Amino acid sequence: MDPHSTDLSKLWPDVSSYILNRDQNIRSLPVTAPLAAISAELPTKSAGPDAAFQLFKTSIAPHVNAACGPRYFGFITGGVTPAAHIGDVLATSFDQNVMTASESAGSAAADVEEAVVVMLRDLLHLPAEYEGIITAGGTSSNTLALAVARQWVGRKNGVDIGEDGLQALGGKAIRVFGTMAHQSISKAMSTLGLGRKVVQVPPLPGTVTQMDPEALDKALSLETNNGGTAGCIVVVQSGEVNTSNCDSLPQISAVCKRHNAWLHVDGAANLLARASPTHAQSLEGLELADSITGDCHKWFNVPYDSGLMLTRHPAVHSAAITATAAYLAATTTPAYAPINLSLDNSRRFRALPLWMALQAYGREGFAEIVDRTCDFAAQLGAWIRQSQQYELLQPPCLNTVLFRVVEVNGEEVDPEMAKRVLQHVNATRKVFFSGTVWQGKPAIRAAIANWRTNVEDDLQIVAQSLTEGYAAAFL
Amino acid sequence: MDPHSTDLSKLWPDVSSYILNRDQNIRSLPVTAPLAAISAELPTKSAGPDAAFQLFKTSIAPHVNAACGPRYFGFITGGVTPAAHIGDVLATSFDQNVMTASESAGSAAADVEEAVVVMLRDLLHLPAEYEGIITAGGTSSNTLALAVARQWVGRKNGVDIGEDGLQALGGKAIRVFGTMAHQSISKAMSTLGLGRKVVQVPPLPGTVTQMDPEALDKALSLETNNGGTAGCIVVVQSGEVNTSNCDSLPQISAVCKRHNAWLHVDGAANLLARASPTHAQSLEGLELADSITGDCHKWFNVPYDSGLMLTRHPAVHSAAITATAAYLAATTTPAYAPINLSLDNSRRFRALPLWMALQAYGREGFAEIVDRTCDFAAQLGAWIRQSQQYELLQPPCLNTVLFRVVEVNGEEVDPEMAKRVLQHVNATRKVFFSGTVWQGKPAIRAAIANWRTNVEDDLQIVAQSLTEGYAAAFL
Repeated sequence: MDPHSTDLSKLWPDVSSYILNRDQNIRSLPVTAPLAAISAELPTKSAGPDAAFQLFKTSIAPHVNAACGPRYFGFITGGVTPAAHIGDVLATSFDQNVMTASESAGSAAADVEEAVVVMLRDLLHLPAEYEGIITAGGTSSNTLALAVARQWVGRKNGVDIGEDGLQALGGKAIRVFGTMAHQSISKAMSTLGLGRKVVQVPPLPGTVTQMDPEALDKALSLETNNGGTAGCIVVVQSGEVNTSNCDSLPQISAVCKRHNAWLHVDGAANLLARASPTHAQSLEGLELADSITGDCHKWFNVPYDSGLMLTRHPAVHSAAITATAAYLAATTTPAYAPINLSLDNSRRFRALPLWMALQAYGREGFAEIVDRTCDFAAQLGAWIRQSQQYELLQPPCLNTVLFRVVEVNGEEVDPEMAKRVLQHVNATRKVFFSGTVWQGKPAIRAAIANWRTNVEDDLQIVAQSLTEGYAAAFL
Repeated sequence: MDPHSTDLSKLWPDVSSYILNRDQNIRSLPVTAPLAAISAELPTKSAGPDAAFQLFKTSIAPHVNAACGPRYFGFITGGVTPAAHIGDVLATSFDQNVMTASESAGSAAADVEEAVVVMLRDLLHLPAEYEGIITAGGTSSNTLALAVARQWVGRKNGVDIGEDGLQALGGKAIRVFGTMAHQSISKAMSTLGLGRKVVQVPPLPGTVTQMDPEALDKALSLETNNGGTAGCIVVVQSGEVNTSNCDSLPQISAVCKRHNAWLHVDGAANLLARASPTHAQSLEGLELADSITGDCHKWFNVPYDSGLMLTRHPAVHSAAITATAAYLAATTTPAYAPINLSLDNSRRFRALPLWMALQAYGREGFAEIVDRTCDFAAQLGAWIRQSQQYELLQPPCLNTVLFRVVEVNGEEVDPEMAKRVLQHVNATRKVFFSGTVWQGKPAIRAAIANWRTNVEDDLQIVAQSLTEGYAAAFL
């Protein structure tokens, strides 16, 4: 391949048309794609980028979903705003490695990231004590936050866990407490060598997902008197993944303070609610957390990968992470040096799509996304409430609707039939929902996190798909 | 912000011109950029993407380096081939979350990733036993590989470390051995709760970086007889970060086998040497490793973030990672499900730029990149050898040149002056080298990993910058 290749400029117009055309038609594209075998044969010769793009169009693109469109409600999936789209394309093109302090790299990329962290902190109405870093997503953020919490527990025991490992605790355990903690918390704990088991705190009487502060108080009292415990970390989901239900952070924080436990709030998909004056109260007390995490590739509508980790313990954060190397020596200045704050060394310029979106839309633009998607969830909930085929499992909360299939007479359907209905709904390819399990029974979850989704364009199509899928399954 | 916004298509032509213009001029752009304060003020109102792009052009772009150009030799920094560039722009635009098996997501994205892993395995001439996953880079890959190794050690002790944590080893330690192991190994160990300390194996007599298999044999013998040791992991750098020196993998593998130790080869920046018939022998015996890692955003010249982790222990790999959740239940099929193989859940479609580059350039194209950059390193080495201002610290190895500043009479200069010379060289903004420390003294390292770098265009400019920087420092 020629090092003077102008393939990029030759190919760019075709690729541009292709991207813009797809973007323009995203509302009418099938939401999910039919699969096909993908060849794993490695070519010997150089066919060139043009041939590769042609092959992409015929063999890959038809089999890739339109999850970034307005009616993919599976998992929790955001789209890409125009500003974030442009920002991410620029990130590709500028191809920065945001690793060292700006001065060491001859590039302001780390300074841009630092500014973006401050802007996000402000967007979320958090005080200036918080510092943090952009990560690859919720799991990365949780792993990092719990690594900082782990370091903090070590300090209380006179141990530098980052440096000397968990074994320096001499057999004492670090306990992590939660109620319906997300799988990514278990995954993070597993990575950190803590094992996957969250100590279960019972929910508030009458609720399924919300941590009972009194039960937490009791559980932490037991641990505090247990000589085998090095320290406690309390994980609160704000909100819980099936429901978006949030806990009472002021109460839980008070319990944590009493027992000198670390409070981690996994803002996950719902952190952005804080940007909306209408919905911010769901995450009231967020500013009491020792660490806060969330995904930006969901509700913030920037491309994958993007997450946020904030903590009010900057010294513990850098102590948990910093490891030096001769050729990186110049990077340990007091300046913002991601290598000392991130579990990864090399890092994409993922602050840039966030910067572009924050500049383009401001507080008001992000609040609009929150309000519009929450409104959609409320309206979808209203439709389900009056439907004879489905019933709500709880009132819609923020941007999440949890519901299930019922018989026309309101009775439960058997689990296999419930699954079949969901398959038929998704087979319309006009909508995509995730199945889940709620209190032991199959349920359907809609997470509305795309900036395009709106009642006027999408609600009727969604309702129709739900109706058609139900009918097809019962045929 | 309007959910029907056509801002993307309105703005795209300007952004396209901007990107293509920068790409066309990348050879003449200053390699590093003057820094400036970056505002962290969050706007309240939506100014729109156009205003954000204008602000980017004036306040950010002039302060971002041209590390993706041909003469940024700092750290180890690759560029972006045209095919990878297009592939990554498509990844942004299609915005896949490559998390679950393709069938669960209604998207072949996971199948594409699986195919890319196979193609990379073939490009690196590794046998079909290896399976693996695309990661966010070298550190992520090392963290994942060592998590798999940790799980394997646990199994030997009847313990499921992923599930039950390190404390289930009952105080027994996992020892990691290395010679000049990279900082990312320490970082990975720290994340995993093992602490940062690598047990140092002395180098082969007469070398600085290469592990002495006899010394390793002795060290492992001691550990095998130590009741406090749960198991051993041996980390080999192929190559070492300052020099690209590689170890004798067949000899080291034989020692590991004898002691039932896990052999991890951190291919780091040099893995791609295996794609070149001329340079593959540097990594002879790679196929003996239990796990292999490397960066793809370096020599492979795909954009950040991209890395590879391969292992010949797929069952241990998935046991180390798999954690389930109700709404993810459908994802635990036998199909390729990244969530069960990756430390992160959500994941960018970073297989796509790799797929595009593999399709576009094939084996021969990647071999050309290796050969051209290694040739450049050899020629730069030849220039340094005849220079009176610099001397080689070892013959160039693969794409790396390690050298230092000397007096005209061949004597050492004092460390401060050595640093000042490097500052002046980099201040030409025509080239960028990392300073490093070699055997206690300041040195300069050139890592040639950009597909564009070539002798004809770049060598003279580099030589001139070295000459000018030296003169300016001694003025």
